[in-house]
Amino acid sequence: MAHLLSTHSTFTLTKSSKSNFKYQNCFSAVTFQNPKTSHLTLKSQFRSYQNKPFTALATSTIGQDITSKAHENSNDQFLSPKNKKVMVIGGDGYCGWATALHLSKKGYEVAVVDSLVRRLFDHQLGLESLTPIVSIQNRIKRWKQLTGKTISLYVGDICDFEFLAESFKSFEPDAVVHFGEQRSAPYSMIDRSRAVFTQQNNVIGTLNVLFAIKEFREECHLVKLGTMGEYGTPNIDIEEGYITITHNGRTDTLPYPKQAGSFYHLSKVHDSHNIAFTCRAWGLRVTDLNQGVVYGLRTDETEMHEELCNRFDYDGVFGTALNRFCVQAAVGHPLTVYGKGGQTRGYLDIRDTVQCVELAIANPANPGEFRVFNQFTEQFSVNDLAKLVTKAGEKLGLEVTAVSVPNPRVEAEEHYYNAKHTKLIELGLIPHLLSDSLLDSVLNFAIKYKDRVDTAQIMPNVSWKKIGVKPKTVSV
Amino acid sequence: MAHLLSTHSTFTLTKSSKSNFKYQNCFSAVTFQNPKTSHLTLKSQFRSYQNKPFTALATSTIGQDITSKAHENSNDQFLSPKNKKVMVIGGDGYCGWATALHLSKKGYEVAVVDSLVRRLFDHQLGLESLTPIVSIQNRIKRWKQLTGKTISLYVGDICDFEFLAESFKSFEPDAVVHFGEQRSAPYSMIDRSRAVFTQQNNVIGTLNVLFAIKEFREECHLVKLGTMGEYGTPNIDIEEGYITITHNGRTDTLPYPKQAGSFYHLSKVHDSHNIAFTCRAWGLRVTDLNQGVVYGLRTDETEMHEELCNRFDYDGVFGTALNRFCVQAAVGHPLTVYGKGGQTRGYLDIRDTVQCVELAIANPANPGEFRVFNQFTEQFSVNDLAKLVTKAGEKLGLEVTAVSVPNPRVEAEEHYYNAKHTKLIELGLIPHLLSDSLLDSVLNFAIKYKDRVDTAQIMPNVSWKKIGVKPKTVSV
Repeated sequence: MAHLLSTHSTFTLTKSSKSNFKYQNCFSAVTFQNPKTSHLTLKSQFRSYQNKPFTALATSTIGQDITSKAHENSNDQFLSPKNKKVMVIGGDGYCGWATALHLSKKGYEVAVVDSLVRRLFDHQLGLESLTPIVSIQNRIKRWKQLTGKTISLYVGDICDFEFLAESFKSFEPDAVVHFGEQRSAPYSMIDRSRAVFTQQNNVIGTLNVLFAIKEFREECHLVKLGTMGEYGTPNIDIEEGYITITHNGRTDTLPYPKQAGSFYHLSKVHDSHNIAFTCRAWGLRVTDLNQGVVYGLRTDETEMHEELCNRFDYDGVFGTALNRFCVQAAVGHPLTVYGKGGQTRGYLDIRDTVQCVELAIANPANPGEFRVFNQFTEQFSVNDLAKLVTKAGEKLGLEVTAVSVPNPRVEAEEHYYNAKHTKLIELGLIPHLLSDSLLDSVLNFAIKYKDRVDTAQIMPNVSWKKIGVKPKTVSV
Repeated sequence: MAHLLSTHSTFTLTKSSKSNFKYQNCFSAVTFQNPKTSHLTLKSQFRSYQNKPFTALATSTIGQDITSKAHENSNDQFLSPKNKKVMVIGGDGYCGWATALHLSKKGYEVAVVDSLVRRLFDHQLGLESLTPIVSIQNRIKRWKQLTGKTISLYVGDICDFEFLAESFKSFEPDAVVHFGEQRSAPYSMIDRSRAVFTQQNNVIGTLNVLFAIKEFREECHLVKLGTMGEYGTPNIDIEEGYITITHNGRTDTLPYPKQAGSFYHLSKVHDSHNIAFTCRAWGLRVTDLNQGVVYGLRTDETEMHEELCNRFDYDGVFGTALNRFCVQAAVGHPLTVYGKGGQTRGYLDIRDTVQCVELAIANPANPGEFRVFNQFTEQFSVNDLAKLVTKAGEKLGLEVTAVSVPNPRVEAEEHYYNAKHTKLIELGLIPHLLSDSLLDSVLNFAIKYKDRVDTAQIMPNVSWKKIGVKPKTVSV
């Protein structure tokens, strides 16, 4: 039994509603089903970005991740992780560490580039990850011991171009995943010097990465972490990076207008504009992943050993909404809903973060292309999250309450929100949706570590309106 | 004889075609004509931004600038320059110097804040203004001697917040005009370090100004110089800052999409986003002047004495299109048309730059408002300019030729371009349009100083594509 699914550039495998993905650059794809085992074999022919044809073969049951199997069995070095070198900038952070391990596991040769300044922020602000985390050096040693796989480590600041240039010349990356930015909106709103630090660090660091690629690795694909916060909350649907506008009888497709809501989010807007220019002017190939709010702790790799455990922030500066609520529920603190709680955003499981980055690397942008994906799987309002955590907490015997606290941010608390997020699905993303079982697992983690919780760090104490020029020298 | 012209928020005095201007916030206006003298008296009633009603009276002959007379005679401190303090950041530069003098002449109390780094760039790159310029200290002394008016001087870098804070606390500005940025696209494309310098200097300097206003002068109106280059060359009409988009059945008015074409232009895009956020979050009042390409040398004030003479750049780094062509014509160098020459942009006379800034200050944005004006008066393609200069040169007996040189930039050389620019006209701008006589005057200036021209500086030698990470240490 064979179905000719498509001879066009993309196709959808529709044998089962659970298998629903498309390949880029696929010009021929056929599936065969073995009537005895019900296994599907997918034979697909692609053109890589160097326009070389190649074939991928994968056998799977319906609903399994046939995409990555096809990648592993393909004869193209650019879709195969074999010998492909990926530099993960910010590889010691929450998303970066999980991604570095995932890519290493998948067969990529990985280097972590990190200044480790995120650990310094914790010291300076008197904060600590809920989960105990070991040094990056010991993390990497443990990974090698468990898997035999080497992760290279370059410790330094990408704003220091000499350091970055040496890292590039030494490692020679085929892809760079850039998580290496100050990534907290509240941190950027503490005081003037943190606002300036955030924009300088993020914008100049990214400029340096762009120059390093142009100078040393022109074919290298940059996978840059943006944020859904770049778009703000417009009263129209949010598209993936671009919008087609018809105005006074003429039409053009233009960058989607940006309305970021903190100096941090603005730094990502600046990056996007800088990157778009270098794709046009220099022909760089870049994927911008406008990521939603990430939740969860475990990935397949980090749960292999306690020394691989990821960080988990629950404080008012670095903690993200859902993770914070789970910790609050675990310690009996009322869930802190900012204002009316109608603020709606896109969310995703950290296991999907690593999957999305892998998909972006396996399907690189074309030279000169500035490709933008909205990287999230579901939309929730803050009130939605509070209800879900309350319900999951009750199942575990926790008494969960929620309170509205004055909103420290300047943002719409009731608004329209409908953001597109189909491009990563088309590349093969199979989302881990937020379910009771996931919430249970995060809640149980929070309960396990609840003696480590410093309840003084739970309430927000950075104000968008009160930020001033005087440096905040005491812990916030 | 009296005409009731309007009881609405704006009105147009149409007694003569030469008098054509509107007032913002005017709710009643009456003109009386004296039959003996033919003098017009304009009595108008306004609401200022603090919503206090006030009356302005002005008498003038038809065609004279009745607007500024009305301002001078009004009883509102915010429309009157009396006692109004304006800080001109970058007041030693091409647009800044002309503006500082113009505002001082009009009765504003002016302070120039400048690091003078623009003069350092000339030394480093081996460039020089066509016109001899004296030091800022001597310029200010000469102005005092001629007019009795004092211009304060604060020499320092606004990226140094301590310096900026002291300047604010000392001068206590009611309005800040911010020209204090690295303003050359080619300069930003010389090498990595200049690209980084441009973005760091411009973005952080502007952030510091925003923080200084929030902390020390919350009511202060910021007039920020942007650029028409922020918009790029979209295939639809360019609006003034915002565009109303209907998409999937919903409508919103959003920031106009930006597609800047150099690291310099991008720095202005970043500024615009940062500023918009601070208007929303902090209630700052800001006018962003997206200026076109400025041409011309003389303003009423700079021509009062040779020591007040403005700078005039003709080199490939700081020179702008029309000014460069005039110098090329004067020295018998073929006009350097980049590529096909279809590149179309907005242009304005430097006398209109100073007029526009004055209008913006006299009619401040409301608290929380981020107002965007497109500041130019006419559109020309590079080929249009070459033809106009050729024709004007011939009148003066110059033999003018034009050559196409390889375009050092990455830009569309044939494209749609239609940019709106009505808001400053509505506030009262009476444009100086590019005419033969103006071209003659600029050409004659260039002829007068032609012995000062270094012809080695005429050709462009900064390439958008060839920019690298190695510092360019020799003159470009």
